[in-house]
Amino acid sequence: MSKPSTPFERSEYQQRLAKTRAAMAEAGLDVLFVTDPSNQAWLTGYDGWSFYVHQGVIVTLDHDPIWWGRHMDMMGARRTCWMSQDNLLGYSDHYVQSTKHHPMQELAEQLRTRGLERLRIGVEMENYYYSAKAHVVLAAALPTADLVDATGLVNWQRLVKSDAELSFIRKAARITDKVIQTAIDHAEPGIRKNDLVADILHAGVTGVGEDWGDYPAIVPLTPSGLDATAAHLTWDGTPMQSGEATFFELSGCYRRYHAPLSRTVFLGTPTEDMRRVEVAQMEGITAGIEAARAGNRTCDIANAFMRVMAKHGIERSGRMGYPVGLSYPPDWGERTASIRSEDDTILQPGMVFHFMPALWMDSWGLETTETLLIRDTGAAQPLCTVERKLFVKD
Amino acid sequence: MSKPSTPFERSEYQQRLAKTRAAMAEAGLDVLFVTDPSNQAWLTGYDGWSFYVHQGVIVTLDHDPIWWGRHMDMMGARRTCWMSQDNLLGYSDHYVQSTKHHPMQELAEQLRTRGLERLRIGVEMENYYYSAKAHVVLAAALPTADLVDATGLVNWQRLVKSDAELSFIRKAARITDKVIQTAIDHAEPGIRKNDLVADILHAGVTGVGEDWGDYPAIVPLTPSGLDATAAHLTWDGTPMQSGEATFFELSGCYRRYHAPLSRTVFLGTPTEDMRRVEVAQMEGITAGIEAARAGNRTCDIANAFMRVMAKHGIERSGRMGYPVGLSYPPDWGERTASIRSEDDTILQPGMVFHFMPALWMDSWGLETTETLLIRDTGAAQPLCTVERKLFVKD
Repeated sequence: MSKPSTPFERSEYQQRLAKTRAAMAEAGLDVLFVTDPSNQAWLTGYDGWSFYVHQGVIVTLDHDPIWWGRHMDMMGARRTCWMSQDNLLGYSDHYVQSTKHHPMQELAEQLRTRGLERLRIGVEMENYYYSAKAHVVLAAALPTADLVDATGLVNWQRLVKSDAELSFIRKAARITDKVIQTAIDHAEPGIRKNDLVADILHAGVTGVGEDWGDYPAIVPLTPSGLDATAAHLTWDGTPMQSGEATFFELSGCYRRYHAPLSRTVFLGTPTEDMRRVEVAQMEGITAGIEAARAGNRTCDIANAFMRVMAKHGIERSGRMGYPVGLSYPPDWGERTASIRSEDDTILQPGMVFHFMPALWMDSWGLETTETLLIRDTGAAQPLCTVERKLFVKD
Repeated sequence: MSKPSTPFERSEYQQRLAKTRAAMAEAGLDVLFVTDPSNQAWLTGYDGWSFYVHQGVIVTLDHDPIWWGRHMDMMGARRTCWMSQDNLLGYSDHYVQSTKHHPMQELAEQLRTRGLERLRIGVEMENYYYSAKAHVVLAAALPTADLVDATGLVNWQRLVKSDAELSFIRKAARITDKVIQTAIDHAEPGIRKNDLVADILHAGVTGVGEDWGDYPAIVPLTPSGLDATAAHLTWDGTPMQSGEATFFELSGCYRRYHAPLSRTVFLGTPTEDMRRVEVAQMEGITAGIEAARAGNRTCDIANAFMRVMAKHGIERSGRMGYPVGLSYPPDWGERTASIRSEDDTILQPGMVFHFMPALWMDSWGLETTETLLIRDTGAAQPLCTVERKLFVKD
């Protein structure tokens, strides 16, 4: 009944598990209950759109992980996880979105059955899929356990990518090149934004050659004009217009791995002001990439960019990027390090960041970004190949 | 700076607010902090892919609602909400995915500034976007407040749709017809599943005529053969094969409103067993629709279906549907009533359900579903028009 193959070799999952257990031991945890779907997939291979109900992976220091979820999704776990069927647990449907029963009561029972109910159990307190209610119910059902916040424990283990992961991210980057190029090529006055997005989605999911496209963790962000002063508006049916800048923040996705990229397209002739900001942004990105090298810190990238902005008299603060790789909706960031002035994570070879120094101005936005691989030596390598500039279509 | 129009008239938002306030008063709440993105959009019009950071709507009994979120997304709120700019609050980027600062500290400050810190404040404890950590931080930052679980309070107000909402759902249903027909037409031996999904996505987002397609809250579910024994697996690059059943669970989306539908396609000649189950399922669905009428209960639909299954010797229990309408990822269900034997919600005209009596067997799955509108009199109206049967392509 199992799938012919998980995305990675068994040995890779064992390495991930070993890293996770070392971090658990350091944090004094006997058990870890993993709810982040990206962490679940990274540890077990589990892959399905079922994170809208409660599910998770139970990691202990000695046994294979246990996937736990709704019974019908346990059937999906059988098709996607590397563990044996004994390690897949399904709860019945009367726990689903009920006001009378909560799945965490069932989880507590499963932990008790395995003699884990008096231990130090890590839970991901800051995660979309571990609700406030889930925590309250689990704590009440396990009064003898010590529930400890382990947010990010697995995420931090994902920061440095394996060679196998990098090959997935490179495939995603080829798909990203294709979708960004599709957006640039098809953008023109009069085309409805949704029709352009339909072409973008089609290009992404067909993929490149044998590398089929998976769904990115964020839908295409493609705002024009005033809408592009906001970061996260999605499309509508309005035709594109001459005289407007449109940014495209998109990612290809190969087996859940991402390589996001943004480019901005101007239909018509951009203002002097926009051209001036373009020059500054390109110079700033180059400076940021130069600073993105092993041994430096995440803040060095942000500071290098901001120094160039200051020189050009442009105000920009805040967050300018995050690590990317394996992800599920609603975010393709890994939620660990940030590229910002107050973050001092040391850069190591194999880390991959979406360097995202977008500039949102009063009446338009200019988004130009790169997915960067930190190398053994030298400046980071941008993984996509689309030319870095403001694209102008007269 | 505001958009030309929100999806609905101002009067519609006022009615929604009035219903919500009545429910708040009944629950003894002075304040409601709404984190569910669907609830936020329903009350204020807010629309953006920004729910991966903390944000919400503060509802009181007397003033216009306040949208609160990340500063860059407040710019999106200016473009999408009906309230004045004074009612849109943005927090700074150093709160975003930080281990040092939490946005709920800033929210607490905003509530305090408005003199709300000693009141009874409802929070949505069981929601993807209100994490365990968010609750702990908010409770600690507001020691004088009484935080009360108000999960579903707004969702239940959404159960009976307005005429304006029904017209959106009908538009979504036209798009659903188009995407399901695309899947049926393009499915054939040898086509890679991801290429078929690309066509499905393209058909959905181009939409129908002037009715442009929005992104559905769930990606296309299109599993074949053994994968179709699990409910929620997504696609890969495997070519479709003769001798396999594939189910398509898809929805069109019009301005965030959904009308999901499933149909199953068999390539080749189905077995006698599958044909037998098809007959039973169609008879069961007809019985369910007959029971789906105002004054009956949700359980009557499930029981009517199960009676037919029992007659045919087929085992099926569990949940068979849920209300649909306005939704954001990861779920297009409204998470209130369920179509199942233990749910006794009284059906009222204007309710819309995805009636979802799929049958997942040992080695194949048969999904045939309908989006149903409860009418003033008579049986429910299926809103999509694709013929109800197992589609066989030799």
